[in-house]
Parts: sequence; structure tokens; C-alpha cells
Amino acid sequence: MTPPIGFYFDFLSPYAYLGSIEVEKLAASRGRTVEWRPILLGISVLKVMGLKAVPDTPLKGDYAAHDWPRCARLLGIAHRPDAKVQFASLAAMRAFAWLNDRDAELARAFGRAIFRAHWAEGRDMSAPEAVAAEAEPLGILPASLLAAIASQAVKARLRSHVDAALAAGVFGAPTFAVDGELFWGADRIGQVERWIETGGW
Amino acid sequence: MTPPIGFYFDFLSPYAYLGSIEVEKLAASRGRTVEWRPILLGISVLKVMGLKAVPDTPLKGDYAAHDWPRCARLLGIAHRPDAKVQFASLAAMRAFAWLNDRDAELARAFGRAIFRAHWAEGRDMSAPEAVAAEAEPLGILPASLLAAIASQAVKARLRSHVDAALAAGVFGAPTFAVDGELFWGADRIGQVERWIETGGW
Repeated sequence: MTPPIGFYFDFLSPYAYLGSIEVEKLAASRGRTVEWRPILLGISVLKVMGLKAVPDTPLKGDYAAHDWPRCARLLGIAHRPDAKVQFASLAAMRAFAWLNDRDAELARAFGRAIFRAHWAEGRDMSAPEAVAAEAEPLGILPASLLAAIASQAVKARLRSHVDAALAAGVFGAPTFAVDGELFWGADRIGQVERWIETGGW
Repeated sequence: MTPPIGFYFDFLSPYAYLGSIEVEKLAASRGRTVEWRPILLGISVLKVMGLKAVPDTPLKGDYAAHDWPRCARLLGIAHRPDAKVQFASLAAMRAFAWLNDRDAELARAFGRAIFRAHWAEGRDMSAPEAVAAEAEPLGILPASLLAAIASQAVKARLRSHVDAALAAGVFGAPTFAVDGELFWGADRIGQVERWIETGGW
């Protein structure tokens, strides 16, 4: 059994969307699995760091708005350059944390659907009702999802994921974890591949 | 005449050091020249953005301290992982701006020397006297350099470089400019090469 590649993500990041596709592709080609690890970038991690969200950061916000679609075009990944960057991802992240404890495979399918709906189809996935509607075709009852994401247990579970990520030194999304090494940024997938290939350098 | 590749840098960034080597190599292989463009990342650009320096940023500082030597090893670039990250680069940046107006070729040789002394040899290049001593083997009189970097004209000249970079949307180092496109980060050199090869995508 080879260990999984860790994939720290927050749906709010278009780079995490690109990373989700690249890391699944890489893992498949190397006989590895991917362990999706939810973090709350905007409302938790960046606060610990004392940073603003990228879209709200002068200069960098404009750059990212131009850069992520440019990266997507290069990678051949479907995208909507006009997708809403102020993505309040909390409901979707809680839903992921809830599903992940029940069925990690289903949670990943849900994750791919949310990423695609928001960043490739331009449908805002901020509202709990939008998240529930997106999950329904996967066999998830909307009422169950809405009840779960409002529960204290699921909030606490997601919080524990975030705390574990911070303790591991994660500060951005996507971050990939392979054999104890962290690689931050969708553009580091080549280094992740190299690390797996060579066992490190 | 093909246009030069713009290379925005501040000596204080170990990623700019890696980028300086990678961009010169790329330009040589593609028959392009590199135009080094000085910015003041720590004391100017990050303030505009409302950010702290990377070494002072929780989590990210620790990551970068581990990551830049890891990148250097992968690229086969000489480096000292224990080089001082609190590099007060103002004197060296002013010296670059002064030299660059006299002789851009000499300024680049000076730039390479400063980067190497600090990040590959671990000798702190913060003090004006250290900068002047490093420049002397290139035929630059220490007294002339020290007088130049204390002059209002050179301070204003460097300021104008920084203002031009901010106006162009530059917010980090290294940033590469090719055919009107900006690419931020040493790890984007592959995209710069691809852009040159294909004319863009």
C-alpha cells in the first residue's frame, strides 16, 4: 500500500480547483490515491497569518484574476474567467466534511461537482441551498445535507480538519502533501510528481 | 530584435536569486536578453499591499525557509539554507539602480555577485560597505559606490523603478515580463518559456 497524496483545499480558491484536477490525474498515473483535506482558507487560515483574501489584496487580486484562467487554458481545464471570486464556501466545506466521514469516495465526487459548478460553469455555490441542489444527483438528500451543515458536530469536525492542517504547517490552497513534504500551489504539481518518482531530493 | 524578458527583483528574495539564474539561462537558450528591473519588495511593494514580509508571516515563513533550498537543490543551484533571511537590501538595490544607468551589463554582473554572495555563500549583503567590497572586483570604486547610494538622485531613480513596477501591476519577486504578460514566482519559468515558444495561449 502506497500512502495517499494529501490535497488540502478550500472550494473558494480557483487554484485549488485546478489543483484538484491535476492531483487526481497525477495520482491515477502513479497508482496513488488522493486524500482530500478540507481547510477554511478565508475565514480561518488567512486570519492566523494576518493576511487578506487574494481578491481583496491590491495588485495580487488583479494578477490572480488574469492568471488563474491563463493557467486553466494552459492545462486545458474548463473554466469561467468571470466566476464569482467572493465565494463564501463555508456551507460547501461543511458538507464535504460531513460526507467525507460517511463515504470518502462520495465526498470526492461531491467536491469535484462543487468545484466544477462554481469555477467551470459559473454558478455560485455559496448558498446552502445551491450546495444541496448540486449534491442531490449524487444521491444525497437535500434535507439531510442542510441539517448536517447546521449541526454543531459537523462544524466541530471541519474545525478539527482546519486545526490539523494548521498544525501540519499548511497555509494556502492547494497544498499537496507527499511523504511528509508539503508543496504549496497548483503550479507545484510537477515537483510533487518528481518527488514521487525519485523518492525526494 | 526580439524584446528583452523583464526580470523584476529584489535581492532580499531567495526566490528572486533562483529566478535570476533560471531567467538568464532561458534567455540565452532563446536568443533573448534579460532586462533586470529593481523593485523594493520589503519596504515598498508589500506596504502597498498591506502584507508582511514572508519570513515574518506565520506558517508561510517556515514553509519558505524549507522550500527555497528544496527548489535550489532540484534546480542544482548553489545555496546556503542558513543565509540570513532578514536581508536589508536597500543599499544593494540603490547600487544596482546607479550602475544600471551607467552600464546595464556591469549592473547585471553586480547583481549576480550580490545574489551569490548572500544566498550561495551566506555573507550578509545588507551593509553598504559589504556591497561596496563585493562590487570592487568588478572595477567599481568603493568610494564612488558609497557616494552614489547616499545621493538623492539615486534614491529617486530607484523610486522611479519601483513606481513603474507598481504601475505595471508587479507585486512580488521574481516577476517575469514577456510580451506584455506578467508571471510571478520562480516556479513559473516553465510558463515563461512556453509563452516564448508558442507566442501565448
